[in-house]
Amino acid sequence: MSLIQSSKNNYIKDLRKLARKKERLAQQRYLIEGIHLVKEVLKSNAKVQAVLATEAFEQSAWLDGVAVQWISGEVAKTLGETITTQGIFAVIELPELERPATLNGAWLLLDQIQDPGNIGTMVRTADAAGFNGVVLGQDSADLYSPKVVRSMQGSQFHITIYESDLLTWFADFKAAGIPVYGSELNEGAADFRTIKSQNDFALVMGNEGNGMQASLLEMTTKNLYIPIKGQAESLNVAVAAGILMFQLSATN
Amino acid sequence: MSLIQSSKNNYIKDLRKLARKKERLAQQRYLIEGIHLVKEVLKSNAKVQAVLATEAFEQSAWLDGVAVQWISGEVAKTLGETITTQGIFAVIELPELERPATLNGAWLLLDQIQDPGNIGTMVRTADAAGFNGVVLGQDSADLYSPKVVRSMQGSQFHITIYESDLLTWFADFKAAGIPVYGSELNEGAADFRTIKSQNDFALVMGNEGNGMQASLLEMTTKNLYIPIKGQAESLNVAVAAGILMFQLSATN
Repeated sequence: MSLIQSSKNNYIKDLRKLARKKERLAQQRYLIEGIHLVKEVLKSNAKVQAVLATEAFEQSAWLDGVAVQWISGEVAKTLGETITTQGIFAVIELPELERPATLNGAWLLLDQIQDPGNIGTMVRTADAAGFNGVVLGQDSADLYSPKVVRSMQGSQFHITIYESDLLTWFADFKAAGIPVYGSELNEGAADFRTIKSQNDFALVMGNEGNGMQASLLEMTTKNLYIPIKGQAESLNVAVAAGILMFQLSATN
Repeated sequence: MSLIQSSKNNYIKDLRKLARKKERLAQQRYLIEGIHLVKEVLKSNAKVQAVLATEAFEQSAWLDGVAVQWISGEVAKTLGETITTQGIFAVIELPELERPATLNGAWLLLDQIQDPGNIGTMVRTADAAGFNGVVLGQDSADLYSPKVVRSMQGSQFHITIYESDLLTWFADFKAAGIPVYGSELNEGAADFRTIKSQNDFALVMGNEGNGMQASLLEMTTKNLYIPIKGQAESLNVAVAAGILMFQLSATN
């Protein structure tokens, strides 16, 4: 394939626009960057529209059989998030998701989480903990922003992530007889260590500053609390999510 | 006190230099920013050299009795990490620490952690989990860099943090008969859930990419592993630290 040498190339200009949510929705695709993520997506079922790489990757055996669009180092710099870009990218179609046929397994629900790094880290942890999927409620930071994508480290290719109204999911879990555990910074809630590990459940984590919405806290099966022993006012939400996910999910 | 209106004021220029480690060591002080952190330090035993604030804080009752150096909004912008600074700062002396008289309680040891946000989050989690202190080994990111300070959220005023050679601490724990638990991404290590909670122990977390140094792994009492159930290759180190700290530390 030919080499794109100009950062003013229209295709490259379109890809650069994918840093913005509006453009990701309009173009129905997003960009990933770096060797690790490109390898992950090539192993996955995600729809890869293109792989772009600099000539530094011409001898990379792991790209054998992949139709690579070659780009110059200068073009790579304009696409990359940092000047020290590795020089390899892939363009991925936004997935079209149908509601799951069953709600079995473990689910992580995110209520108005704002920090992209927190969202990405929680998706990665849910993957590591063997969760079935993640549901991002409305008013969360966007799932396919460059920062979220970087901190997910490819876990979006392993587990399913929905962007949806949490209330609908609450109702579906209730109808299926599956417990929904809220989390709150409230000593009146249940100590998380009193909950036995289990196979089928949903865990809800709330906004960094304000926690879960009160209206959602009222609709859970039970709300959990991680006792704070020191003087810190709270835990980072991604750390709290990790502690709860590994406590709640069955160990086998 | 008079108002500093020029960002070229020599004192302000010295404070701006504190973003660099070399200058923090030379001046033996560091800068904190924001209402939350300034409130935390005023409640603590830390040595506060100065509080600087814009006129927006003139009516703040919580600053009654505090000798505030007033600064203009323009000066605040040059001191702040972001343009949207809250306009309040404090200058803190680097603490002079003596080795603790006893190693009782729980300790977190960090081996070559590179990401400032990870260090800060782990210090905050150690505080929340009721740990006695944290020891940063050599080749870690600097404890008083602006990013670490921001993510510690004031926990450095609640628990003691040492920057030291980990080998010396290992020897001291061993001499005191206190177990040191390493952590590694190795299914041959002990499943962390098999370790009972306890009062006196040290937990070691390793570098984001490479884990703990092999030489340290050999010197621990036992090395722990968090079983990964999904396809994620690993957990974020701060999440893993949170899971281990809350598993290991006694619940009472």
